[in-house]
Amino acid sequence: METKSSSSMSTMILHNAVIVTMDLESRVYGNGGVFIVQDQIKAIGQSADILQQFSPLSEQIIDLRGQILLPGFINTHVHTSQQLGRGIADDVDLMTWLHDRIWPYESNMTEEDSFISTLLCGIEFIHSGVTCFAEAGGQHVTGMARAVELLGLRACLVQSTMDCGEGLPASWAVRTTDDCIQSQKELYEKHHNAAEGRIRVWLGIRQIMNATDRLLLETRNTAKELNTGIHMHVAEIPYENQLVMDTRKVDHGTVTFLDKIGFLQNNLLSAHTVWVNHTEIDFLSRAGVKVSHCPAAAMRMLGFAPIKEMLDADICVSLGTDGAPSNNRMSIVDEMYLASLINKGREVFANGTTDPTILPAEMVLRMVTINGAKSVLWDNEIGSLEAGKKADLVVIDPFSWTMVPAHDCISSLVYCMRTENVVSVMCNGKWIMKDKKIVTVDEKEIISAAKQASSELLKRAGIKIPNRMNVL
Amino acid sequence: METKSSSSMSTMILHNAVIVTMDLESRVYGNGGVFIVQDQIKAIGQSADILQQFSPLSEQIIDLRGQILLPGFINTHVHTSQQLGRGIADDVDLMTWLHDRIWPYESNMTEEDSFISTLLCGIEFIHSGVTCFAEAGGQHVTGMARAVELLGLRACLVQSTMDCGEGLPASWAVRTTDDCIQSQKELYEKHHNAAEGRIRVWLGIRQIMNATDRLLLETRNTAKELNTGIHMHVAEIPYENQLVMDTRKVDHGTVTFLDKIGFLQNNLLSAHTVWVNHTEIDFLSRAGVKVSHCPAAAMRMLGFAPIKEMLDADICVSLGTDGAPSNNRMSIVDEMYLASLINKGREVFANGTTDPTILPAEMVLRMVTINGAKSVLWDNEIGSLEAGKKADLVVIDPFSWTMVPAHDCISSLVYCMRTENVVSVMCNGKWIMKDKKIVTVDEKEIISAAKQASSELLKRAGIKIPNRMNVL
Repeated sequence: METKSSSSMSTMILHNAVIVTMDLESRVYGNGGVFIVQDQIKAIGQSADILQQFSPLSEQIIDLRGQILLPGFINTHVHTSQQLGRGIADDVDLMTWLHDRIWPYESNMTEEDSFISTLLCGIEFIHSGVTCFAEAGGQHVTGMARAVELLGLRACLVQSTMDCGEGLPASWAVRTTDDCIQSQKELYEKHHNAAEGRIRVWLGIRQIMNATDRLLLETRNTAKELNTGIHMHVAEIPYENQLVMDTRKVDHGTVTFLDKIGFLQNNLLSAHTVWVNHTEIDFLSRAGVKVSHCPAAAMRMLGFAPIKEMLDADICVSLGTDGAPSNNRMSIVDEMYLASLINKGREVFANGTTDPTILPAEMVLRMVTINGAKSVLWDNEIGSLEAGKKADLVVIDPFSWTMVPAHDCISSLVYCMRTENVVSVMCNGKWIMKDKKIVTVDEKEIISAAKQASSELLKRAGIKIPNRMNVL
Repeated sequence: METKSSSSMSTMILHNAVIVTMDLESRVYGNGGVFIVQDQIKAIGQSADILQQFSPLSEQIIDLRGQILLPGFINTHVHTSQQLGRGIADDVDLMTWLHDRIWPYESNMTEEDSFISTLLCGIEFIHSGVTCFAEAGGQHVTGMARAVELLGLRACLVQSTMDCGEGLPASWAVRTTDDCIQSQKELYEKHHNAAEGRIRVWLGIRQIMNATDRLLLETRNTAKELNTGIHMHVAEIPYENQLVMDTRKVDHGTVTFLDKIGFLQNNLLSAHTVWVNHTEIDFLSRAGVKVSHCPAAAMRMLGFAPIKEMLDADICVSLGTDGAPSNNRMSIVDEMYLASLINKGREVFANGTTDPTILPAEMVLRMVTINGAKSVLWDNEIGSLEAGKKADLVVIDPFSWTMVPAHDCISSLVYCMRTENVVSVMCNGKWIMKDKKIVTVDEKEIISAAKQASSELLKRAGIKIPNRMNVL
């Protein structure tokens, strides 16, 4: 199925690494090795054993000199199309954010803009150790897919899908429910399983205020038919819940309504999910819904999601960066640090004092690896370093001033590590970054193209950012 | 007073930079230049004007190729001695943190440990663009001072001072009030104005639960006599306030008591200051007390300080990282990002929803520059780029994937910038980092010494960190 395209090397040993496997037994090899054939991990264990058994079969043997090997990180909520819009909506209220900045921006994008935006975003992902992401929905899936193919990343792509709603840009306001479903089926046909199987196409719902009941149900049914996932923004702000209560006759908010119509399923990736009560947490848990927690965006725009309560209810929670205008740093590495801090701090409001023991480092690490894999319905192949899984991995250099001393290796990865420590990244058995140099695309060219495209896009969209200071 | 030690260059122009001056008029030069003589900025303005007027007088002319020039950042609350203890107390409750980890660690430190710890911490500061910091109090000021002198940084150093309190390590429990004051006077004599004037010695109070009333009053009087500042942890946890109410007969907490005894003065740097009510904010404001807000430590351990309310009351609020066991990332750059996010999020609890307009980027930038300078009582010489001030500055490269596109230069500095973007740092007219290489000390040597010293210190202190995973 996933055929490997031509490459000079197809068998490889990485050894002399601290391997944090993130497997079911939470195994960590103090001096471990891994044997990779094509796109797959064939064996993992102590360095000495791996070397002894597989050296004769390996075209390449790489000594990682005590660096740390982890599963590639998984970013489960991102708008790759918004990368060119980084900084267009900082420190403004939500209505300005949406009506005066984001909608004009997105509705003026071309497929080429989306391509460039995804490339720029992809560079940031790779430098942050991300090998797989879940797109939250943009206008031009084909542009995204072209970029993902080039970058060498793994992704679940989604079209931004809306069939109703007030105040939308004119170009968006005309889509029927059937259009929405049909175009997504076509995208599925065109891109699903493309790029050596690295691309999957999901169904998207932008948010409940832009979806008719029929769109919700057709989406659920189509996803089932295609055996794929659904990505949706859920319970982001109190206003959303209130509107659902007022117009859809339920006693709480979006999650209560989605439960009522049978939309909650285990293939739903529910982004943000901030304003939910205990009953709704129970609905999500029972249905096996996955939640993407985006700490920075939550703090900045939405509120504190009850992550501890969700984890206590056995909900699979993963981490996302959201889009650049919601969180200018698109770094899952920073998101790990934030997730821990924010959820410890949130206890002040629940219980009167912070609780530094909440969301310990090992749980945060799980959120960006195995929980991420479950959230994108791909945990049979990614999310941990185990024989039989894909070779998606990241090499961390812990020997610089950012991480020394490392008295606690696991907490050091979550609380000290920065993107600066991410040195090499492999996806699907191929290096996409080596020694901090991205090898699949030309960074400088992309940065240059992005500057130009974003500047033209803002002009086209009529977006002007006021000066904050006295520029001379 | 501040004589410059020998250096090959004593006059210099930096030009072709975006200069964010942080002066009273919030001037930003789109293409600016600065003329530096010895340790001082002699002129600042448009590149063309500076070049025309001062080129003949300049031994060196450096083209910054459009990079951004800012005042050096000021970190107003840090425990440099705790750097070797990074990771020793992650995800543990407060009592374990203090009694089983921090006290054994600190009370087993030697002066040499403190020297190495401060060097390691200093490397992180320099890479984060910090040129000046306020030490919160450790055991060995002489060790710190030696390190600061070598690093080329500017600092206000403080001895950790306690004359009472239960459960303290034996070696700390014996100090009299007179000892505390006398030893600080000696440190002042020895180190104040050392290192070309880069070092100042302040008075310290660790916290109210370890200070008699007499120590507080003597500290206040001694600081006045020496014309220096006082650094103290204030209102960190609800328990502290409760204890003050119970034992010191006031109706709220630490700040109320400090006001009552006349301790609140404009030379007091009040760290954290989380649990204060409106009356206490008013006390702080009227007295001109400065507050060091440490967002990461607050989220992780203490709670949400009412920063918006303090700023509304015209209190000078600056930013601090706190110590490594409270915030493993000792980066003021990350602290800027956090300060904005956390205080926008905090509005949920005050007003029901987040407010993305709270603590805008320009205010956060002020907190790490001019407000930092005011907090360390040094704003006549640092905190902004102006003729007559010291040449403490940082060069930011905004052209990499972390900061592109930069539609909003100021918000980009606060929300996108990472330590990766800090390329060069000057303190007191001397480069201490150039093109990401620290020139004052040998990074590798320090990292190596820090690993060894920290490992031996933990052994001596009997601190064992349990494994979080299944290490094979």
